Amino acid sequence: MKAGIINVTGYSGMELARILHGHPEVEITSVTGRSAAGKRLGEAVPHLGSIDLTITEELTGSVDLVFSALPHAVSAERLGPVLDQGVRAVDISADFRLRDPKEYREWYKVDHPSPQRLGDAAYGLPELYAAEVAGAQIVANPGCYPTAAILALVPAISAGLVETDLIVDAKSGVSGAGRGKYPYSEVNESVSAYSIGGHRHHPEIVQTLSSYSRNGDVRLSFTPHLVPMTRGILATCYAPLLDGSTTQGRVMEAYRSFYEDAPFVDVVGEPPMTKHTLGSNTCIIHPVIDRRSGRLIVVGCLDNLVKGAAGQAVQNMNVMFGLRESQGLEGLALYP
Amino acid sequence: MKAGIINVTGYSGMELARILHGHPEVEITSVTGRSAAGKRLGEAVPHLGSIDLTITEELTGSVDLVFSALPHAVSAERLGPVLDQGVRAVDISADFRLRDPKEYREWYKVDHPSPQRLGDAAYGLPELYAAEVAGAQIVANPGCYPTAAILALVPAISAGLVETDLIVDAKSGVSGAGRGKYPYSEVNESVSAYSIGGHRHHPEIVQTLSSYSRNGDVRLSFTPHLVPMTRGILATCYAPLLDGSTTQGRVMEAYRSFYEDAPFVDVVGEPPMTKHTLGSNTCIIHPVIDRRSGRLIVVGCLDNLVKGAAGQAVQNMNVMFGLRESQGLEGLALYP
Amino acid sequence: MKAGIINVTGYSGMELARILHGHPEVEITSVTGRSAAGKRLGEAVPHLGSIDLTITEELTGSVDLVFSALPHAVSAERLGPVLDQGVRAVDISADFRLRDPKEYREWYKVDHPSPQRLGDAAYGLPELYAAEVAGAQIVANPGCYPTAAILALVPAISAGLVETDLIVDAKSGVSGAGRGKYPYSEVNESVSAYSIGGHRHHPEIVQTLSSYSRNGDVRLSFTPHLVPMTRGILATCYAPLLDGSTTQGRVMEAYRSFYEDAPFVDVVGEPPMTKHTLGSNTCIIHPVIDRRSGRLIVVGCLDNLVKGAAGQAVQNMNVMFGLRESQGLEGLALYP
Amino acid sequence: MKAGIINVTGYSGMELARILHGHPEVEITSVTGRSAAGKRLGEAVPHLGSIDLTITEELTGSVDLVFSALPHAVSAERLGPVLDQGVRAVDISADFRLRDPKEYREWYKVDHPSPQRLGDAAYGLPELYAAEVAGAQIVANPGCYPTAAILALVPAISAGLVETDLIVDAKSGVSGAGRGKYPYSEVNESVSAYSIGGHRHHPEIVQTLSSYSRNGDVRLSFTPHLVPMTRGILATCYAPLLDGSTTQGRVMEAYRSFYEDAPFVDVVGEPPMTKHTLGSNTCIIHPVIDRRSGRLIVVGCLDNLVKGAAGQAVQNMNVMFGLRESQGLEGLALYP
Repeated sequence: MKAGIINVTGYSGMELARILHGHPEVEITSVTGRSAAGKRLGEAVPHLGSIDLTITEELTGSVDLVFSALPHAVSAERLGPVLDQGVRAVDISADFRLRDPKEYREWYKVDHPSPQRLGDAAYGLPELYAAEVAGAQIVANPGCYPTAAILALVPAISAGLVETDLIVDAKSGVSGAGRGKYPYSEVNESVSAYSIGGHRHHPEIVQTLSSYSRNGDVRLSFTPHLVPMTRGILATCYAPLLDGSTTQGRVMEAYRSFYEDAPFVDVVGEPPMTKHTLGSNTCIIHPVIDRRSGRLIVVGCLDNLVKGAAGQAVQNMNVMFGLRESQGLEGLALYP
Repeated sequence: MKAGIINVTGYSGMELARILHGHPEVEITSVTGRSAAGKRLGEAVPHLGSIDLTITEELTGSVDLVFSALPHAVSAERLGPVLDQGVRAVDISADFRLRDPKEYREWYKVDHPSPQRLGDAAYGLPELYAAEVAGAQIVANPGCYPTAAILALVPAISAGLVETDLIVDAKSGVSGAGRGKYPYSEVNESVSAYSIGGHRHHPEIVQTLSSYSRNGDVRLSFTPHLVPMTRGILATCYAPLLDGSTTQGRVMEAYRSFYEDAPFVDVVGEPPMTKHTLGSNTCIIHPVIDRRSGRLIVVGCLDNLVKGAAGQAVQNMNVMFGLRESQGLEGLALYP
Repeated sequence: MKAGIINVTGYSGMELARILHGHPEVEITSVTGRSAAGKRLGEAVPHLGSIDLTITEELTGSVDLVFSALPHAVSAERLGPVLDQGVRAVDISADFRLRDPKEYREWYKVDHPSPQRLGDAAYGLPELYAAEVAGAQIVANPGCYPTAAILALVPAISAGLVETDLIVDAKSGVSGAGRGKYPYSEVNESVSAYSIGGHRHHPEIVQTLSSYSRNGDVRLSFTPHLVPMTRGILATCYAPLLDGSTTQGRVMEAYRSFYEDAPFVDVVGEPPMTKHTLGSNTCIIHPVIDRRSGRLIVVGCLDNLVKGAAGQAVQNMNVMFGLRESQGLEGLALYP
Repeated sequence: MKAGIINVTGYSGMELARILHGHPEVEITSVTGRSAAGKRLGEAVPHLGSIDLTITEELTGSVDLVFSALPHAVSAERLGPVLDQGVRAVDISADFRLRDPKEYREWYKVDHPSPQRLGDAAYGLPELYAAEVAGAQIVANPGCYPTAAILALVPAISAGLVETDLIVDAKSGVSGAGRGKYPYSEVNESVSAYSIGGHRHHPEIVQTLSSYSRNGDVRLSFTPHLVPMTRGILATCYAPLLDGSTTQGRVMEAYRSFYEDAPFVDVVGEPPMTKHTLGSNTCIIHPVIDRRSGRLIVVGCLDNLVKGAAGQAVQNMNVMFGLRESQGLEGLALYP
């Protein structure tokens, strides 16, 4: 299989290159980047020096699959001609995640560049939508926060254990913001909340969770936080239990059976740490009943650049092309 | 004024020494420490080298005030003889925080060493209890998490803006756990939740907030998290608004008027970062209405070793001895 | 005394404001900043919110002393009119450090904006040049690396203990590079050397050390490194011992007597850590004889924004205006 | 191939497990650990949960190769019976690195447990000693600092470009000290030197470099530093050039030709950062002529737990068993 990466010089793009380089069934044949066009990949991105490619402005040669790691709006635009040629694509940007172009406009403040294609896109969370992903031309790779929040909450909602009056309090490493946004000295040794009540991943979480909610209704507070580390997301999710007598055992059973066949979700009995996911495609989930408040608390964590971006994109690729879901993604986390 | 510090070699104890050293009305005359007894203070704690004292096992000479920075249970025990002599004390341990010795036993798993003294203790949050603090022999210095959570939530509860069905999702730097607990390589670049649904600061938060709640009832989920930084606590607090039409302006007004005379609480209109409190006694509070969910979200942040421990202890001392509340505590935060 | 700060929004400028705010003899009466002009100081620099000033483009009112925290070349230019009015200045930029305008041109790649003033400037390392500083109109505040390296090496050179064939291997926190240069995710968890053999602080170190060298000759390798922390410089300095029989005791004595009257230099017998200087104006120095190699190794460390910039500037101010050298600078380091 | 790991719960042991798990030719069949004996591997070391093994006190079953990740002295002792059975071993401890048991005693303060086996051991730096490694029963895996320092300096010494009057100023992440030694809050945001003039890796560096020195003589100052990051070593090495007219081109050529066939050494023209080696087995080397001082400065960097420990151990295994040297070690660095 030949794969191309659009915008290899961003964090998601370079992480895609790292992962695909170790994938036994894939060859990266083309990588693009604007300001670095013309450079050897290893000049622009030194840790990829052993991948023998030159960065170009546009994709070159024919490929079986394109990964786009461009920012939103630009991504859908650049993918247009590629999709016209029938090539399949995994889009890491937000462009094909929301089904409703009006909602896209509301949150992203631009008109969707190709609303007519929204129907061709599958939401690429393979734990929930493997069949759609397998058949889609476009796979919209979920956001990093939504991946953690949705995987943490869906089993409880789906099993009817909780009310969908939800709080997702999420903590992210700095790489989630992309290259160059936060100067070291101003975020190091500091935690802060941002986009309180108004982050763009809000509608994405609601869209998926409401399809699992019995009455289709989800009320959500989503508060992202910036934490002084490079990678990692930990989402702490709160939902009122519908039945106060629900046991911890019943909850664990619901979660374990929901993810029985999911190679990348670990349901655990102790609070996880993001460090246990570093560099791996694993999402660790820890549901606990908080008896005093009558709530279910679920902690989900993952590496925002792997299961939250590039790793999930490769997992989607595996599903799209009928490969084993975990192929090329079996590396363990780097610890400590 | 002469002050003694019991257990100067712990993080709170050494921070007390740093702050008191710069206080114009106080002289530190005695510092204790078990394993370091006999050493010069600067040998055991190098950054305090310019304080010319020897660490002893027991307090020496007579003092006007004792600060205890011992762990719980040990603290109440060691303070006993000191209190018998009529000396006043600020206890940084948890021993005099909970009014009910049964609750103490439930959470701390030991019998309270001196339940008969609980009535003599004031809860040392001067923004709420200055009068009690001024007159008390024992001041129970609040926990770091409770300080942030209570200061963030009390104005809204007191003004009747919210239901007391609360979530406090708190993020703390590693120094909050005391000396030596967490090895660098295992907490660096990682976030995790701990003591989910069962942290010892839970009853302390409930005890204070319920005295402000109209029906005396508080339901609380409290989830502390460990964040890879040395100092700082950020508490993100969630409460349902009682009236959906409450405006952001109304909320800000309630908070600003509540803290009008509080020299160490800043109510701000933008999400704060813990780094803006480093080394200072400030607690920054940011209340926001989350219209979509009908909740009030309040972020509170502070330096866990200053406003969350030693600084607040000195603020309590100022109130106890009729000094200006902010004396010796006016240093600005160290940024970046 | 009234003081003005030019460019209060840079790291050195804001640190000057923090320190001067706590200085009993000084009032900050004017602060400038280009992009933030018109804003309240607390809007642009939140941790300085309790200083009640508006940022202006130019200095306002009359002041006794101006601190310039501008970049080189711009600084000398902007100081011109101020100096013409007879106001005294401490310049934190590099503009008045090198005595020879040709050397300035060689290292900074621009012509010196006011070479005629170089003769009026003193090199503001008060441990060495207090008399010159006291009488100067312009004080050139030394670079952060040179402060550490020179204070570490001068006593040995001055006492004739070593050959001046020197290596200074220095490690700096990220704030030394100024605002915004290094994105968090790309310098966190990483160490690297930079400007090997060609850093601009090279001639500054050589200029001062050669005036202490018996033959006026200094050969120096200076290698700066970037370390993942916000503040702190540690310089590890190597020099061949002239006499192989020199004892550790002799060395300690030379260092201790050299700094007998220096309130901000601590000569210690154990390897220091930068953390013991955080926020304080202290430089800690640890000289050791490496018997196996016949070298003297001297470790010097300090907070690059305090003793390496703003604190030293205030120390210079104290000397210039006949105040106690340590006034306003007595705060202990923040640890941990 | 079946491999056993003694002491899988230390940092080197767990890193061995991670790497071997991804090695196509190896099966880990036995893992030992004292305090964790009886537990599932994933209970004791969560990120290794997908390796289905139980930790035992002693090795179980027969293995082709044993890796020992025990501390020195204990390691040689525990390996004794294993070696007696003819099993081959890679020892990550220091026990078989120094050829002279007297030197071992001098530096490690204990008698060597099995001096009679020192002759059977090869020093496992495959870039230099592949032939010896291939034939040895015991391979002494080099220390992390020596790996960086030796690889950085050998080409210049071997080519006769420099005097062997050397300084190695090395900076290491905290994991190099093993589990649990440094509490987070006391090393974070701090740099310090330690063991100045007396670190145990000193004789190991000298032993190897002197075998490349023309006159067999090496004078070395070795200063290790602790840097606030988890992984990574950067060694900055200084040596006087023998001939002042040596060009940068000549040096690069000497280095590139020396490492022509070394799959894990990259000789580069720009200063490297440790982050570019995170999780990979690469050592990056950057030699620069410092014309002003007449010295060669060489920066070498690597991941102390991979090329500095477990990765190099697997590389040695590949060489010992005739596998491709880079097999199982081809993963790229994790960046950012």
